[in-house]
Amino acid sequence: MAAEIVNPRSDNSTDQDGGVEPHDSFDPAFALHRGGKMAVQATVPVRDKDDLSLAYTPGVARVCTAIAEQPELVHDYTWKSSVVAVVTDGTAVLGLGDIGPEASLPVMEGKAILFKQFGGVDAVPLALDCTDVDEIVETVVRLAPSFGGVNLEDISAPRCFEIERRLQERLDIPVFHDDQHGTAVVSLAALRNAARLTGRGLGDLRAVISGAGAAGIAIARMLVEAGIGDVAVADRKGVVSRDREDLTPVKRELAQFTNKAGLSGSLEHALAGADVFIGVSGGTVPEAAVASMAEGAFVFAMANPNPEVHPDVASKYAAVVATGRSDFPNQINNVLAFPGIFAGALQVRASRITQGMKLAAAEALAAVVGDDLAADYVIPSPFDERVAPAVKAAVAAAARAEGVARR
Amino acid sequence: MAAEIVNPRSDNSTDQDGGVEPHDSFDPAFALHRGGKMAVQATVPVRDKDDLSLAYTPGVARVCTAIAEQPELVHDYTWKSSVVAVVTDGTAVLGLGDIGPEASLPVMEGKAILFKQFGGVDAVPLALDCTDVDEIVETVVRLAPSFGGVNLEDISAPRCFEIERRLQERLDIPVFHDDQHGTAVVSLAALRNAARLTGRGLGDLRAVISGAGAAGIAIARMLVEAGIGDVAVADRKGVVSRDREDLTPVKRELAQFTNKAGLSGSLEHALAGADVFIGVSGGTVPEAAVASMAEGAFVFAMANPNPEVHPDVASKYAAVVATGRSDFPNQINNVLAFPGIFAGALQVRASRITQGMKLAAAEALAAVVGDDLAADYVIPSPFDERVAPAVKAAVAAAARAEGVARR
Repeated sequence: MAAEIVNPRSDNSTDQDGGVEPHDSFDPAFALHRGGKMAVQATVPVRDKDDLSLAYTPGVARVCTAIAEQPELVHDYTWKSSVVAVVTDGTAVLGLGDIGPEASLPVMEGKAILFKQFGGVDAVPLALDCTDVDEIVETVVRLAPSFGGVNLEDISAPRCFEIERRLQERLDIPVFHDDQHGTAVVSLAALRNAARLTGRGLGDLRAVISGAGAAGIAIARMLVEAGIGDVAVADRKGVVSRDREDLTPVKRELAQFTNKAGLSGSLEHALAGADVFIGVSGGTVPEAAVASMAEGAFVFAMANPNPEVHPDVASKYAAVVATGRSDFPNQINNVLAFPGIFAGALQVRASRITQGMKLAAAEALAAVVGDDLAADYVIPSPFDERVAPAVKAAVAAAARAEGVARR
Repeated sequence: MAAEIVNPRSDNSTDQDGGVEPHDSFDPAFALHRGGKMAVQATVPVRDKDDLSLAYTPGVARVCTAIAEQPELVHDYTWKSSVVAVVTDGTAVLGLGDIGPEASLPVMEGKAILFKQFGGVDAVPLALDCTDVDEIVETVVRLAPSFGGVNLEDISAPRCFEIERRLQERLDIPVFHDDQHGTAVVSLAALRNAARLTGRGLGDLRAVISGAGAAGIAIARMLVEAGIGDVAVADRKGVVSRDREDLTPVKRELAQFTNKAGLSGSLEHALAGADVFIGVSGGTVPEAAVASMAEGAFVFAMANPNPEVHPDVASKYAAVVATGRSDFPNQINNVLAFPGIFAGALQVRASRITQGMKLAAAEALAAVVGDDLAADYVIPSPFDERVAPAVKAAVAAAARAEGVARR
């Protein structure tokens, strides 16, 4: 999701040497980030030579030999089963774009600590100094023995689709591009609850998604698989439809499973009479277009920091309004999904994260709201401690049901 | 260094299903390793949405932007400056040989927790699923943005030499193959103290090294640079000398800077009259050969678990005896070196670890022994808390003196 972009040179101060400070020294974000946000810790004691002879030589050699003879033991006797690689190439970082691997690291560290804090999952930030699809795939394949899962992050479309697909084919551990599927899971959970609140079935709803990037395409796919009536996706040139001749391969595929109504033309045109708007574009939607939607519509304006339509405006017409921001009700935040999804997948040593596991995650997330369901409460808070355990349990159960669990 | 090899199937029990237990359930090494030996932790709070807005979006975007504009800030605002990649391909793990990446992971985790425990350095085990030199080099280069240093581990010779050299050429962070240089630093420290104890200068000593692999070659190089009188290295075919026609390129280079005396023939032959024996071969040395050494010799029989000559036998002839084992005096253990070396290098953001920094580490390590110097105390205990700070300070100072420090 996009984030506030601040030019660090816009508020320069001059340091003692007459040089230019690279950032606002009074910005608490810099104070908090000094020295990084994470560390490694030993979970076994190394106090004396007896400890050392078990955790390291000679004792460790017996464990190594056992794994060499029975490879699946690596899950039992190393941290592989609890650690996820958070992999990026720094090409699509938040709303900042292609800022490179080093500059993306604070986001990857942030992601890693959210994995730990919310899901109890260890995570290691790996920002790669390459952008070629083949190189990224090969690099991650070579790294895979050390990890129980791979969370792809902030890799630009359309490369992100091919990278994820090829890694899923090559590896027997979960590979999950959070910008796609995390966003899709949380959006679907919110949509389920909005439908329940207003007494409608998903099959009765027609949705319009603004943005045909990683998130928009993944949301469209998930809504279709969840049984939504129809969904149309608009890019900058308008609704993606089969008769458009300017589509990339990915969008041609998108056109195959969306837009049953055969809409064409502008986003605004598609919104007339629509039941759901989901914005993951960073663009804007005029008030008139929101007003033209069906009675009791849902507006999820998730662009950060500026929602496609301000929630105060959307609320004049819509029954349920959600954003990507924490200072309005109903925040669609990926942290509601990825920690529990990986925790569940790792618990049962799933070989992959299936669409069924993602749908189960969305259902479990929606169910946390329970009887407290209201227009301003269709999705739980990221700090609701029930969330990750519920998602984890649902994902683990779905993995077993789908036959991808290995224990 | 080699470690005890136990066949995990040698003491099989039968489980309830009639299957074969892969290991001895009563071996405490397995109990200790269950679930792995390490974890990640957040070092900043993520308790509420205010925390989240600083550690993650939107606050993190300002830090990312600052790094994008001034790349060196990555050292200040991420954990890069405190984290080392522990990289292996699993081809020369302890004394177990080529057991592959998964089976090497317990050793890499062990290394990582020793980095943390002894040096305060965060470390991430990365066992790579490739053995081709080009592939390993490219993979580590792509990973480098996320790390402040690279510790190469348990990669077989001669590939380890080329991998280290090429990575050092390509990267501006320290790349250090511990099996070579860690062993060399600790051996030199012990040798310095043995010489001091017996009132001899390094220039007066002639040493013989058994083993021309990674450790043997690195020890030879370091002893020569420290000013030892002469050093000869023996492989399985005898002393490496310029007239041998069966030498690999690496050993041809070794022959150029060792064996000034022009020795040839067997290890035993070379030991006659020698002042120092250093064993890193895993072979054995007959008692008669030890008896033939010069009066007041030093015998460092470092093979694990079986020293080249038993220390009780060596003590009959030698003035100072050291081994690789913790149950005899004078344990030559790499953990005395690598945590402090990386801690010092990271502290000053050294671009590399120079020979001068390694020599400084050996001197600092030797100096910890101080006035307590004795035949059974030429090297400190791994648990001596003075060691890592002393090595760290010496390495940081040497980095500054040699112009490779960046702060």
